Amino acid sequence: MTTGDLLDATLASIRPIDADVLAAAQARQLELTKPPGSLGQLEELGNQLAAISGQCPPPVPTPALACVFAGDHGVTAQNVSPWPQDVTWQMVMNVAAGGASVNVLARHAGADVRAYDLGIVRELVDERVRSRRVAAGTADSTVGPAMTRDQAIEALEVGIQAALDAAADGYLCLVPGEVGIGNTTPAAALVAVFTGRSPADVTGTGAGAVGEMLDRKREVVARSITVNDATASDPLGALAAVGGFEHAAIAGLVLGAAASRLPVVLDGVIACSGALAAVAMCPEARGYLIAGHNGAEPGIRAALDSLGLRPIQAMDLRLGEGSGALIALPVVQASAKILREMATFASAGVSDKE
Amino acid sequence: MTTGDLLDATLASIRPIDADVLAAAQARQLELTKPPGSLGQLEELGNQLAAISGQCPPPVPTPALACVFAGDHGVTAQNVSPWPQDVTWQMVMNVAAGGASVNVLARHAGADVRAYDLGIVRELVDERVRSRRVAAGTADSTVGPAMTRDQAIEALEVGIQAALDAAADGYLCLVPGEVGIGNTTPAAALVAVFTGRSPADVTGTGAGAVGEMLDRKREVVARSITVNDATASDPLGALAAVGGFEHAAIAGLVLGAAASRLPVVLDGVIACSGALAAVAMCPEARGYLIAGHNGAEPGIRAALDSLGLRPIQAMDLRLGEGSGALIALPVVQASAKILREMATFASAGVSDKE
Repeated sequence: MTTGDLLDATLASIRPIDADVLAAAQARQLELTKPPGSLGQLEELGNQLAAISGQCPPPVPTPALACVFAGDHGVTAQNVSPWPQDVTWQMVMNVAAGGASVNVLARHAGADVRAYDLGIVRELVDERVRSRRVAAGTADSTVGPAMTRDQAIEALEVGIQAALDAAADGYLCLVPGEVGIGNTTPAAALVAVFTGRSPADVTGTGAGAVGEMLDRKREVVARSITVNDATASDPLGALAAVGGFEHAAIAGLVLGAAASRLPVVLDGVIACSGALAAVAMCPEARGYLIAGHNGAEPGIRAALDSLGLRPIQAMDLRLGEGSGALIALPVVQASAKILREMATFASAGVSDKE
Repeated sequence: MTTGDLLDATLASIRPIDADVLAAAQARQLELTKPPGSLGQLEELGNQLAAISGQCPPPVPTPALACVFAGDHGVTAQNVSPWPQDVTWQMVMNVAAGGASVNVLARHAGADVRAYDLGIVRELVDERVRSRRVAAGTADSTVGPAMTRDQAIEALEVGIQAALDAAADGYLCLVPGEVGIGNTTPAAALVAVFTGRSPADVTGTGAGAVGEMLDRKREVVARSITVNDATASDPLGALAAVGGFEHAAIAGLVLGAAASRLPVVLDGVIACSGALAAVAMCPEARGYLIAGHNGAEPGIRAALDSLGLRPIQAMDLRLGEGSGALIALPVVQASAKILREMATFASAGVSDKE
């Protein structure tokens, strides 16, 4: 396959989630020994899992896989993060060694972690990290596109292939994670482009941009969009112009998951921005998305509102790596078990309402 | 021991959570490989677990035990629930058989379930249910106290003993659950008494009281408080006057857990009302409480605000049985693992901010 074929084939293969199975799940909820609707959002989640999988009751979405995509960002030249760029490399090594937040929370939720180097400036050679390097960091989006279109497609296809590999390996739920110093700046730009909100509204402190640095970050987001004429009407072009390698890989992971009929649990503004790009390219992918967490970064709420997703939790996390999705994962699993394991009024001999 | 001795001894033995260990946990969070404060409420939970246990890092609060206290309510004579009273018995049998929401969600979170009959009208004889009957249902609180003071003490001590038994059996976290047709009515009355809010503000639909039934329920809550002169200055008297057996047992469970230095994860207006009564009797118990879920019932928010607790989740559950606490349990467990398992900047060789 030449570059772009996998993306095209994936986009063509995505089907909407199953409306008939959704209705069957909604009907089954009413037979379970509880007042109608009394499990609230947990019922909606279970019903969505049924519609995603095409089965009622749905399989419990476990084991899950967190795919941590890492890359560096030319826009850090604009001084938008208080962290040195080498922390990307260091944190990926921390993930590889099992000591990062994503590792702790994944182990707790029964999920595995795979780390991908999409383009860290300091090349990372370690058998625990999958090398899928597009380039040694993106270009500075304030002076031109962060990626060429071909680079964006290449990063998208890394994400698609990660999803297809996960599906082939028997994973039933995917969690996009990311590491990349400066990556909330391209995420904010993508959210602004795809939601139509202003850069000032959707740009937050990320991992610690405050005061003058935050003002500069907002200006950098706005300038990146303007310089590149980034527009939602050209999703791939916008992703290439103001995004990043891990944002594109996450968009690909969403598309690959949807093509494989697997749910994707989102956390953080980077994952949400990748999901926006994926849904812009293929609206049917939206039904496969679950919002794990509404974090402190303002772009998250803007993205979730635009995607029509209600977050499971809101615990003020702003760490990234997929952390907020992983703490939500047990809830997602529980929603399937409710449909699978709860007794019905008939089976338990419980009277219905008078 | 005569009735009341266990309560008195428990109240006398409760100590505040450990402020020094809390500070040590807060300091440790800053050493872990994440931006300061970036795990938000997950950090606060972990720090609280450290202060509760007196250890940093804290033990992972597992295994957990859900104690499901069941009872019937004289106030159902006022037609405040659409469900026949025998559903209490039926649902406890469903819990005993493992088919209720609490069973599914407890299994998922690695928790066990113990069911207690505090006073179901139809006596329940089943080896899977612990018989601790105070009476065959409470009295109608609109015409006099629901319980005598001695009955309230007896129910409180069932809860205390349940906590002490759980601690002796090695459980490290307790979840109060309940089953009892009509029990959101006494819960709303307790919330009104202990928070000072109006009955209309804190009375909700429970398991399905809508329209005229909801209007009547609000009036019944107000009348129960007035008829009995229930006041927060006499917590035991208020609990007896307008509460229920399971509300009192939950208050006891909270006190017994605090005496045993174990965390208690709350869900639902019944559990919150019992926690309010416990904290009114012993303010130091408050530090042992974790709010698992903010449900649809308005009394929950009123109670949590009064207790100064921030819920982990808000998924519109209104099922009871402890369901919302059990879906939050994995998050509570995760918060301890963060403190125990995450690498530090020093150990992982990660640079700190510039």
